[in-house]
Amino acid sequence: MSNQSSKGAILFSSTTFTENEWVSRIKALAPDREIFTEPHPSVEYAFLWKHPHGQLKDLPNLKVLFSLGAGVDHILSDKDIPNLPIVRAISDNLTARMSEFVIWHVLDHHRHGAFYRQNQRDNHWKDIGYQPAAHQIKVGILGLGELGRDAALKLNNIGFEVSGWSQSQKRIEHVTCYAGRENLPSFLSELDIVVCLLPHTPETENILDKELFSHLKTSGPLGAPYLINAGRGALQNEDDIVEAINASILSGASLDVFQEEPLAADHPFWQMPNVTVTPHIAADSDPDALLLKIIEQIENFEAGKELVDLVDLKRGY
Amino acid sequence: MSNQSSKGAILFSSTTFTENEWVSRIKALAPDREIFTEPHPSVEYAFLWKHPHGQLKDLPNLKVLFSLGAGVDHILSDKDIPNLPIVRAISDNLTARMSEFVIWHVLDHHRHGAFYRQNQRDNHWKDIGYQPAAHQIKVGILGLGELGRDAALKLNNIGFEVSGWSQSQKRIEHVTCYAGRENLPSFLSELDIVVCLLPHTPETENILDKELFSHLKTSGPLGAPYLINAGRGALQNEDDIVEAINASILSGASLDVFQEEPLAADHPFWQMPNVTVTPHIAADSDPDALLLKIIEQIENFEAGKELVDLVDLKRGY
Repeated sequence: MSNQSSKGAILFSSTTFTENEWVSRIKALAPDREIFTEPHPSVEYAFLWKHPHGQLKDLPNLKVLFSLGAGVDHILSDKDIPNLPIVRAISDNLTARMSEFVIWHVLDHHRHGAFYRQNQRDNHWKDIGYQPAAHQIKVGILGLGELGRDAALKLNNIGFEVSGWSQSQKRIEHVTCYAGRENLPSFLSELDIVVCLLPHTPETENILDKELFSHLKTSGPLGAPYLINAGRGALQNEDDIVEAINASILSGASLDVFQEEPLAADHPFWQMPNVTVTPHIAADSDPDALLLKIIEQIENFEAGKELVDLVDLKRGY
Repeated sequence: MSNQSSKGAILFSSTTFTENEWVSRIKALAPDREIFTEPHPSVEYAFLWKHPHGQLKDLPNLKVLFSLGAGVDHILSDKDIPNLPIVRAISDNLTARMSEFVIWHVLDHHRHGAFYRQNQRDNHWKDIGYQPAAHQIKVGILGLGELGRDAALKLNNIGFEVSGWSQSQKRIEHVTCYAGRENLPSFLSELDIVVCLLPHTPETENILDKELFSHLKTSGPLGAPYLINAGRGALQNEDDIVEAINASILSGASLDVFQEEPLAADHPFWQMPNVTVTPHIAADSDPDALLLKIIEQIENFEAGKELVDLVDLKRGY
């Protein structure tokens, strides 16, 4: 390519995203840059979603790694990644989509969606009777980063009593914030609905297990507590969730993520009456909005400005 | 009763509410007042929900009529009601409950609840693909009283683009407000989701009919527009709704109220795949909260203060 652009070239690499669609989008937004889909010495920026591991180790001009989603576990699990800045895709759009999903499932549980849908299938007009208002329901959010904070504020605006838990202490108006493992049991002991928006790190892996469920209260205005996981599948012990629901320790769960995706067709979750399965759609971000933000970051970086939304390697997210 | 209280007596009258439950609640909140369940000359206040018509005409000491719900059509349709102030039950609780319901159904349509539930029944992992964000969806609210205003603000807080229509011009931050019949077509022509929270008056009866649907756009990010009616069953022409859905003029509907309640077991709505039926549960208010507010109004009234939440008989709500 003799007519090579002077602007830094891009590598797009994903084992799961449709390559030609994504390359077209990137070309449309960055027409003045070369785009590669295989490793090439000239690439300066890598756009990654579940890339083939090992692929990035000998790229002499590589400067920044961009994740094409909020999670970066797919990058950090590659033992051969170069020691370069890693940027997560945090767009307003992605945050807003996640809050939509969380509010949708909190309300569907709170307002007894499953009960009314079953009655509709039976042509049966029946009021469930006592209906607690949102302000009587305690929703707790595991993870108070951008996503957790936005969901907490919006749930509170609808009327729910909201608390949250995170590794480091946060402050959010009208939201009771707990921090550190030692405060996890007291945080959990009050909740009617547990929403998990944690990142996947060695510390959070399998955190949604029988030990955690043992700290939940046994009943409340909606019965036993309800679990919503829209974080990562690796956060949940699925056998423990099935067992907790069968033992009425949990009244049910809305799960968008799973240990293995797609969820196997014979997994018990599909047909459990108190489980809602969605196929990892909580916060599909608009690809153009996400790419536009990455391209802007590159332009700023080339103009000497600092990168934002950087991964903290010590925390792992 | 020789030991009659000096405080004004109460008549409780309803053909649908469970009498002994309600009388117990009123007694607990107003232990110093006599409570009647049949007309009696000494009653000063009537607590009404679908009372037997004609019952109120010869009560010499009656001073105020209280509706035990937001609607007052059940009182105004009694040709024998005395010319007295009528107070609607508008509690923060009722308003909040209605917004919960509206947000729940807006999100369930926006996030394709029916699609994902069908796939779950088939153990089928499938992403619907393109997913517009809330800010790409135009939600329009028919009726901008307390209920409509609260729902509009909360939907906007989640990200939806919200507009509203009412008889008289309103102003709500971030919400485009239309007023008057002449502006109804332009209001409707932009919407992806139509939420009806109108009161039932002669002007609004049957407003949700084929003439109104004819002003809707034919497609948008979610396909044809979707209808949510949580106002009154008398607002909707049910044959026209069935026809509009079958003709894909509407993509579906969430209906909480019906021309006749309970909805007949053989009504087509029950089994239409794009219709969600709930049994008039959108805003069941907490009876104690509602009664407490009425008792407080009575105490204020007896202390010479003005009644609030009065029905405007000229408007009819």
